[in-house]
Amino acid sequence: MAFRKITIDDVAWFSSILGTNFVHTDQEHIERCSGDQTEDLRYPPEVVLQPGTTAEVSSIMAYCNEHYIPVTPRGAGTGLSGGALPVHGGVALDMKRFNRILHVDKRNFQVTTEPGVITQELQEHLKAEGLFYPPDPASKGSCFIGGNVSENSGGPRAVKYGVVKDYVLNLEIVLPDGTIIWTGANVLKNATGYNLTQLLVGSEGTLGIITKIVLRLIPAVKHDLTILVPFRSAVEACAAVNAIFLAGYTPSALEFMERDALEWSMKYVKSTGVDLPADIAAHLLIEVDGNHMDELFRDAEAISEIVAGFDIGEILLADSSEQKNMLWTLRRKVGEAVKSNSIYKEEDTVVPRAELPELLQIIKRLGAEYGFQSVCYGHAGDGNLHVNIVKGNMSDEDWNVKLTEGIRKLFTEVIRLGGTISGEHGIGLVQKEYMDIAFNATQLAIMKQIKNVFDPRGILNPGKLFV
Amino acid sequence: MAFRKITIDDVAWFSSILGTNFVHTDQEHIERCSGDQTEDLRYPPEVVLQPGTTAEVSSIMAYCNEHYIPVTPRGAGTGLSGGALPVHGGVALDMKRFNRILHVDKRNFQVTTEPGVITQELQEHLKAEGLFYPPDPASKGSCFIGGNVSENSGGPRAVKYGVVKDYVLNLEIVLPDGTIIWTGANVLKNATGYNLTQLLVGSEGTLGIITKIVLRLIPAVKHDLTILVPFRSAVEACAAVNAIFLAGYTPSALEFMERDALEWSMKYVKSTGVDLPADIAAHLLIEVDGNHMDELFRDAEAISEIVAGFDIGEILLADSSEQKNMLWTLRRKVGEAVKSNSIYKEEDTVVPRAELPELLQIIKRLGAEYGFQSVCYGHAGDGNLHVNIVKGNMSDEDWNVKLTEGIRKLFTEVIRLGGTISGEHGIGLVQKEYMDIAFNATQLAIMKQIKNVFDPRGILNPGKLFV
Repeated sequence: MAFRKITIDDVAWFSSILGTNFVHTDQEHIERCSGDQTEDLRYPPEVVLQPGTTAEVSSIMAYCNEHYIPVTPRGAGTGLSGGALPVHGGVALDMKRFNRILHVDKRNFQVTTEPGVITQELQEHLKAEGLFYPPDPASKGSCFIGGNVSENSGGPRAVKYGVVKDYVLNLEIVLPDGTIIWTGANVLKNATGYNLTQLLVGSEGTLGIITKIVLRLIPAVKHDLTILVPFRSAVEACAAVNAIFLAGYTPSALEFMERDALEWSMKYVKSTGVDLPADIAAHLLIEVDGNHMDELFRDAEAISEIVAGFDIGEILLADSSEQKNMLWTLRRKVGEAVKSNSIYKEEDTVVPRAELPELLQIIKRLGAEYGFQSVCYGHAGDGNLHVNIVKGNMSDEDWNVKLTEGIRKLFTEVIRLGGTISGEHGIGLVQKEYMDIAFNATQLAIMKQIKNVFDPRGILNPGKLFV
Repeated sequence: MAFRKITIDDVAWFSSILGTNFVHTDQEHIERCSGDQTEDLRYPPEVVLQPGTTAEVSSIMAYCNEHYIPVTPRGAGTGLSGGALPVHGGVALDMKRFNRILHVDKRNFQVTTEPGVITQELQEHLKAEGLFYPPDPASKGSCFIGGNVSENSGGPRAVKYGVVKDYVLNLEIVLPDGTIIWTGANVLKNATGYNLTQLLVGSEGTLGIITKIVLRLIPAVKHDLTILVPFRSAVEACAAVNAIFLAGYTPSALEFMERDALEWSMKYVKSTGVDLPADIAAHLLIEVDGNHMDELFRDAEAISEIVAGFDIGEILLADSSEQKNMLWTLRRKVGEAVKSNSIYKEEDTVVPRAELPELLQIIKRLGAEYGFQSVCYGHAGDGNLHVNIVKGNMSDEDWNVKLTEGIRKLFTEVIRLGGTISGEHGIGLVQKEYMDIAFNATQLAIMKQIKNVFDPRGILNPGKLFV
């Protein structure tokens, strides 16, 4: 079914529902909703709508569904797989006005929030109440919680606390035909029908528009401690990750950074906080947390002894907020730093943790074979390695054709290792051409039929997930 | 579409695939596969098949799908909602030969197992390797891990460690048409397509036959400690549950038992291990676990101080294995004890934890109104309360008609409190008539369409989940 272009009459109708202040066709709004943080891709919507209530979303969806107008929901636009790009034009459904934390249920350790709340603001609001919502993607200072749910985001703390899916209890969603439903119940255990909540989490805005989110919370943790361990071999750094777990320790973060990642990030934020001797190839950034500082020092010491079994440089222990902030800022800014350095593609590989050393070797071998340079970093504790492939001096043809073949080989190896092609960034637009590596025709057919159950006319975030 | 009855030719065909040793039409096998632990319900299958390989399951499914023969998968038959009852006759697919633990991947803290392994045997096998799979339903000594996955089982430890869904990484399933697929990947984080794994967990054997299960594991925990706290008011016992969490403690189990539950269980197992003074109305059974015994004693003491703020009797501290086993046996045997005492129905209510005192009051009020006696117990830490309604002196008509109305009222109140109608037992056969209380027509239609995606001919476990 072909999509219909938006007309003046449609705009007038949208304005009758939302008011003219929240219906935009000017260049500035169209421009802002044309891209996210995925490479330099731009796909302009025809109109930007900013609903403020579930009822308004429902009206918009029913109208667009009736008229075959594509709708692309948009959070803060921090996505890394192009999920928010309106590749078929139509409506960009900007959820920024859904910015209220509706109810902190301290008795039940739950929060009900709208999707347009910035993740870090939600975390800080909850922390002030003694509550903890752990998932913290690198973009937490700007991303929306709704986007996190749509992509099943992770972040450094996932290694101890799990990813977004482990905290979502219930969702209010608007279906493409305008119907409003809840996906589950506000309970910790649920054996009542199919798990629609978990089906929606990570569905990348293709099944319904999320308008309310109920999250489970845990008690706030009092203390944390961070150490930075330099390794002379990047493969050894990956091997050390598993040694820590095998010894029975579960850090609250266990991040890997190749030398280039840290070096570029230091330049980008103009930091001189970390010594980078010439023989250092990679770092592990390790955080432990808990309620008793003495136990954290004991754990940090035990972990230091484990990594000392590898060829390492001098360990930096950060226990002041200044030092911790400096290290975590460096880690969080790696993505932006790489982006500022060169055109790049970011792959979000994930494998069973112990296969990381092999994965890193495969990446470097494929780089040599296909002529690409890569900067690797990520959530090593989860086996989730971000592979930033920088264009550098690569020819446009090699970048557009030969590289795709190299990425296909990389993903094929990732699957062989028991992993998959996205750990936390989603498939969206830019990874969909690789879905056939992760899934066979039957698996893909099931997913497409599930999409069809929710969105029979295919108006919701079309052009994503599937080729 | 009407189902076809099984013929002599079908039996011959099944025998050609499985061998005659694993195709049964004799009374003993039919009888064994006619019931589970749900009330006294009996629905005989026409034939019992015992496949030993995924390929055999695939052949059977393809054949039954082609010939419109209903197939009801069966684990150990310990279910409490009738999920394994062959209500339309046809094939009982007995999975007992899928009893191998295929691969303990200690490096990655994962296990790949077949579904017919007894949960406790799996746990003990893993424990010997220093690994821990926490979910432990009361029937763990006899239930199969495959049934646990199908029902998204919980158990006492869910309060700290989560339910089955929190441990399932990947499933091999056979679809009704015989196709074999994996639902995901063996990774801790996954943002690659729709979460088919979580859709299958808790789908009660209605979407596919589970033939392999990959579970994530955690390091074994060294110590635990159990206390039993008697309360003079059952409602106060429920209120104490939340006080413990609000003080920042997360016990590894927090179980509630009304006086009758414990008393009947003691009679049933002929135990005199617990004093039951006349003024005691309920108990909390509280376990803490961890790697340092001194911390456990400290936590147990802190929890004892919290509960001392309520009207309690003398706390029993169990730190020997004999005492702990005695207390946990009493807790686990409550279900059987109630069953041996009277005809009963068990409801598996779950609400946000802090609403437990109100739930208990509602149950007792409805009991008075509808003339039923109830014995309540369960996983109070999760807000999951099992309500055993005993027939006692109720007339058959009241039992069959009036009671149903009372249960509808109870579930309506559960939903009003933010809860749902099954926390861990599933819907199966006996709760399906109440699904309209938990879900509206749109939600149910989505679930039915998802069922249709996997099983367009409706041959797989028909008559379950939906009316």
